[in-house]
Amino acid sequence: MIGASGFTGGELCRLVVGHPDLELVQATSREYAGKTLGYVHPNLRGTDLRFTDPSDMDSVDVLFAATPHGVSMEQIDSFREVAGLVVDLSADFRLPEAAAYDEWYDGHTHPGLLAEAAYGLAEINREDLRGADLVAAGGCNATAAILGLAPLVEDGFVDADDRVVVDVKVGSSEGGAGGDLASSHPERSGVVRPYAPTGHRHEAEIEAYLDLPVSFTAHAVDMTRGASATCHVFPGDPVTTGDLWGAYREAYGDEPFVRLVAGGGGVYRYPEPKAVAGTNRAEVGFEADGDRVVVFSAIDNLGKGSAGQAVQAANIALGFEETAGLEAVGLHPVGAP
Amino acid sequence: MIGASGFTGGELCRLVVGHPDLELVQATSREYAGKTLGYVHPNLRGTDLRFTDPSDMDSVDVLFAATPHGVSMEQIDSFREVAGLVVDLSADFRLPEAAAYDEWYDGHTHPGLLAEAAYGLAEINREDLRGADLVAAGGCNATAAILGLAPLVEDGFVDADDRVVVDVKVGSSEGGAGGDLASSHPERSGVVRPYAPTGHRHEAEIEAYLDLPVSFTAHAVDMTRGASATCHVFPGDPVTTGDLWGAYREAYGDEPFVRLVAGGGGVYRYPEPKAVAGTNRAEVGFEADGDRVVVFSAIDNLGKGSAGQAVQAANIALGFEETAGLEAVGLHPVGAP
Amino acid sequence: MIGASGFTGGELCRLVVGHPDLELVQATSREYAGKTLGYVHPNLRGTDLRFTDPSDMDSVDVLFAATPHGVSMEQIDSFREVAGLVVDLSADFRLPEAAAYDEWYDGHTHPGLLAEAAYGLAEINREDLRGADLVAAGGCNATAAILGLAPLVEDGFVDADDRVVVDVKVGSSEGGAGGDLASSHPERSGVVRPYAPTGHRHEAEIEAYLDLPVSFTAHAVDMTRGASATCHVFPGDPVTTGDLWGAYREAYGDEPFVRLVAGGGGVYRYPEPKAVAGTNRAEVGFEADGDRVVVFSAIDNLGKGSAGQAVQAANIALGFEETAGLEAVGLHPVGAP
Amino acid sequence: MIGASGFTGGELCRLVVGHPDLELVQATSREYAGKTLGYVHPNLRGTDLRFTDPSDMDSVDVLFAATPHGVSMEQIDSFREVAGLVVDLSADFRLPEAAAYDEWYDGHTHPGLLAEAAYGLAEINREDLRGADLVAAGGCNATAAILGLAPLVEDGFVDADDRVVVDVKVGSSEGGAGGDLASSHPERSGVVRPYAPTGHRHEAEIEAYLDLPVSFTAHAVDMTRGASATCHVFPGDPVTTGDLWGAYREAYGDEPFVRLVAGGGGVYRYPEPKAVAGTNRAEVGFEADGDRVVVFSAIDNLGKGSAGQAVQAANIALGFEETAGLEAVGLHPVGAP
Repeated sequence: MIGASGFTGGELCRLVVGHPDLELVQATSREYAGKTLGYVHPNLRGTDLRFTDPSDMDSVDVLFAATPHGVSMEQIDSFREVAGLVVDLSADFRLPEAAAYDEWYDGHTHPGLLAEAAYGLAEINREDLRGADLVAAGGCNATAAILGLAPLVEDGFVDADDRVVVDVKVGSSEGGAGGDLASSHPERSGVVRPYAPTGHRHEAEIEAYLDLPVSFTAHAVDMTRGASATCHVFPGDPVTTGDLWGAYREAYGDEPFVRLVAGGGGVYRYPEPKAVAGTNRAEVGFEADGDRVVVFSAIDNLGKGSAGQAVQAANIALGFEETAGLEAVGLHPVGAP
Repeated sequence: MIGASGFTGGELCRLVVGHPDLELVQATSREYAGKTLGYVHPNLRGTDLRFTDPSDMDSVDVLFAATPHGVSMEQIDSFREVAGLVVDLSADFRLPEAAAYDEWYDGHTHPGLLAEAAYGLAEINREDLRGADLVAAGGCNATAAILGLAPLVEDGFVDADDRVVVDVKVGSSEGGAGGDLASSHPERSGVVRPYAPTGHRHEAEIEAYLDLPVSFTAHAVDMTRGASATCHVFPGDPVTTGDLWGAYREAYGDEPFVRLVAGGGGVYRYPEPKAVAGTNRAEVGFEADGDRVVVFSAIDNLGKGSAGQAVQAANIALGFEETAGLEAVGLHPVGAP
Repeated sequence: MIGASGFTGGELCRLVVGHPDLELVQATSREYAGKTLGYVHPNLRGTDLRFTDPSDMDSVDVLFAATPHGVSMEQIDSFREVAGLVVDLSADFRLPEAAAYDEWYDGHTHPGLLAEAAYGLAEINREDLRGADLVAAGGCNATAAILGLAPLVEDGFVDADDRVVVDVKVGSSEGGAGGDLASSHPERSGVVRPYAPTGHRHEAEIEAYLDLPVSFTAHAVDMTRGASATCHVFPGDPVTTGDLWGAYREAYGDEPFVRLVAGGGGVYRYPEPKAVAGTNRAEVGFEADGDRVVVFSAIDNLGKGSAGQAVQAANIALGFEETAGLEAVGLHPVGAP
Repeated sequence: MIGASGFTGGELCRLVVGHPDLELVQATSREYAGKTLGYVHPNLRGTDLRFTDPSDMDSVDVLFAATPHGVSMEQIDSFREVAGLVVDLSADFRLPEAAAYDEWYDGHTHPGLLAEAAYGLAEINREDLRGADLVAAGGCNATAAILGLAPLVEDGFVDADDRVVVDVKVGSSEGGAGGDLASSHPERSGVVRPYAPTGHRHEAEIEAYLDLPVSFTAHAVDMTRGASATCHVFPGDPVTTGDLWGAYREAYGDEPFVRLVAGGGGVYRYPEPKAVAGTNRAEVGFEADGDRVVVFSAIDNLGKGSAGQAVQAANIALGFEETAGLEAVGLHPVGAP
């Protein structure tokens, strides 16, 4: 594991440690080399492993890279040298085309690998993941949006001519560890902060994999884990709630990690990030409203939105049981995980 | 003051106690009659006044009614008997037409008063408020949305043919005091809960006063005070950010309680509910994004979204300085007010 | 499982569902009979089981009772009729003597069973639990305090003549589901509320099992899960931090669920409830300060503080691996779980 | 105002801007010189004033210095040159004796001024403040503890031979703006973190002004503003709750900013930081418990705990009405301010 002291890296460590078919052999961190994992991740205080410097990599079956954007593309050759499968959790290999990458990020150093990398979201790309040797786990906001919208696209309820608004609410862990002034507790607590009013890079990812342009806006809200996407969709033709049930059941009826939550009773009638915190699950719900369809999608940004998705993709690529190491159930009650 | 033990009633008490031209002579509460205001509202522990039973009303210059929906319309005659000005903070007199009221609520007992009542939002209805004797303060979500959208409507950037999505995030005080299971701390903390996916009644209010149909969805998020509306607007013709500055400056340049916050530097670049918590201020911001305009609007649901708006309207109706008793500045830092 | 719709009952369901040697055959709830577990506990939405009425109990190997105080003692005979092992999570069988029970609670209907019930805290009572057929899981605050203080008592650093202050901070789930006005989100958020300044019943439990009178005060703070006890102890003779390490290592060196966290580096240098949220772990730390010893102890009130402790006790009583079903590791980062 | 971009500096700006007898003429900040106050403090977005570089100070009647510890003592001569009254909010002049300063901090560059500076807490030092030209506002935790304990000391219920434990819970703004990793939202949210288990410097301050050694421990909890001190006191002779009412009424009956809150009904029966957030008020409560007295004291660490106390002290020193500019009432409900 490269970049194990960050939030995504820590979550990967937790998942790999509990995985029946994987063993955590190495966790690198430049800053914390020599310290125990528990020094940074208090939940892992019981683990003996210590961080090592990333310059000295062991040969492994699978290498997870949870580094800041730009690092993986620089080091991808050395990663692939030591590992049969590389699962990258940065944005470096998420977009399938260099042109899109150049538009939304800076230039790519290995554009040839973009087409080769398999997008990590199993629900829309399972076949490509089988036997893959380079996987790019999706972005958390893109994952939430894609899971919410994919059945509408697949069933032809919506296409590139229709208006689609994606209004996202995310937790503070999305900003990564060791944040800046804006991430300090006094400034970050209790906000409804439009941190990406327009032009968020995950817009490119949604468009690339759904072939659907969306109007995307992201807000930081007061939770640490979680991403919730509300998609306001205006299909060309009228859609009923019954149609929606049909489309979503067909898409997700057999998916081990997607739950449909659309109305019904009780306190939690729609997808709720805190109901899936700490898990690889996604909750998806919907409601027809005249000429609009509202879709809700909730994930843990560190679970299904990155580390969980990465492990699920690795399971598929390596031929393990797809759900191995990912069966954890969330908590109830739980405050603002 | 009728209904003074609720959250809105408590906020009204606080504002009236600090108002230079008003004196709080009576605060009614059926449940807490005989108790001090501080028994329910700990911030008012220094006040000697005690709740009285609503059956025994004093004659007053202005009566604020902060009762649950449906109560005011039943008692409006007795309210008007004892007070020259009635400011109602429920939904009972917000909609100007009985037909709309019947569609979104139940039947109205005094439909004739609907046209007579002046809508309380000064920024769009100041002239009607002068000398009014019945004022209906707007709903908090509607207030946030209307303040965000009004300049676009006034300047003709958007009309009833265009798509407008209003995605609202609100705090727990909107649910009122003494809430149910869904409002209990363990269940309510940390949520991003779509509590009104479609069909929220404030949709009617926005349509009534802006003549603009909107697709409205409200989410409960983890704060106590605050409402933030993100409006995704698709104008017929292209709009630049410069156009937007022009329209909003024209609309709000002289407004004492509206601040434009659109980009710039620092941590708080867009409207933020916690920056206006405890005040009568609204922050409004915007950004052009291709064929979309995104508008953000943030208020304190108990301030500009109800009690503050009500006092501002009363100030106008009674000929006081419009800002009297409402100059309070918010706090920084502040957590999740 | 009796009382499965409450918070403790839900946590028990979650643990039993994931337990390798147990199967959840029945979960009762008067209020929610016929509904799925997921109707109340959204984390269990994937489970097919439905609540049943408590009047119709199946025969089981182990019955967990998570009812309000007073219910178990009324129904203990019927519980024992259907189950070889009863693990009660209420206060009904926690105190070993009827006199103490009468002093702190009301009269007991089955005082004879008090001596028979085995106190559920394995760390101080493991031997009694082997083969027990009636177990009383400890109270959450008492558990935190006892785990913190026990090594000092065992090693004779402190006795009944010394001053011991136990200052506890707890989360909102301790108040149970469906709370009252004080538990509503607007009132409960952000508090440091002394809810039991003196006279908390867990004082009796600490005294009963440690033979140590303590001055106990409990505060509600803003989290949902978690209990943190700070014990200020004034030993008769001077104690060094080295002495403390010796005593605590001796007491807990082999304990699978107790971690010593006392100083060191990083962000989390002392016991932290959020580091153990969702787990059966306890963190214990300490520091000598002249004539005072400060001890910190942190647990999840629904984990080690009730449901986790109950399952651990059941594992011992039934001869299972003691850690079976309890190996879950916590999360990092996690907000206010 | 020196150091106006920090949290305490921002709160001072807010108070001075609203003060009837003061005018904010200058607010310095090295980092933000040239920016508006609202760039850093969003609540002050309506203010035109811009930060200036501290090297260029205007002559003023009163200079408030809200700099990190150590800065004021270096610059005290230049401060006094431009201002008739200097109110320092750092720890530099809080301790009356150089020996104590050396023990708890590093060496002092102007030890001669320590005896000259008047401690800013009016409730115990009002007479010294009249006409003072150098005021040292107290530390927030010390302020909470001193307000809680002073009446017990004054009435002789407790003296230096008795055990006194001060267990403090504080909000994240105490750590100042621009915090470190430990202050980042994901790490800081939801904690009950013993950040000063022993040896907190405020212990020295309490001892200096009450002549009472205390065992002090501070915990960070999930709020932004607020400090709550729970004092566990073991008087030599028995004390009744009636005795306590007598002592506290005598001490605080005429104090404009201290409220006694001890039992009674409703949700808020004891001192609560969120009931005084944004104000200069302190709430103090107590309860006798056998040989123990428990005292609770709650303040806003940025209000009565620093900026509010400083303005109150300045009011006294300058001969203004003592409550001028400090009459603000808190909010209800309010989440985690």
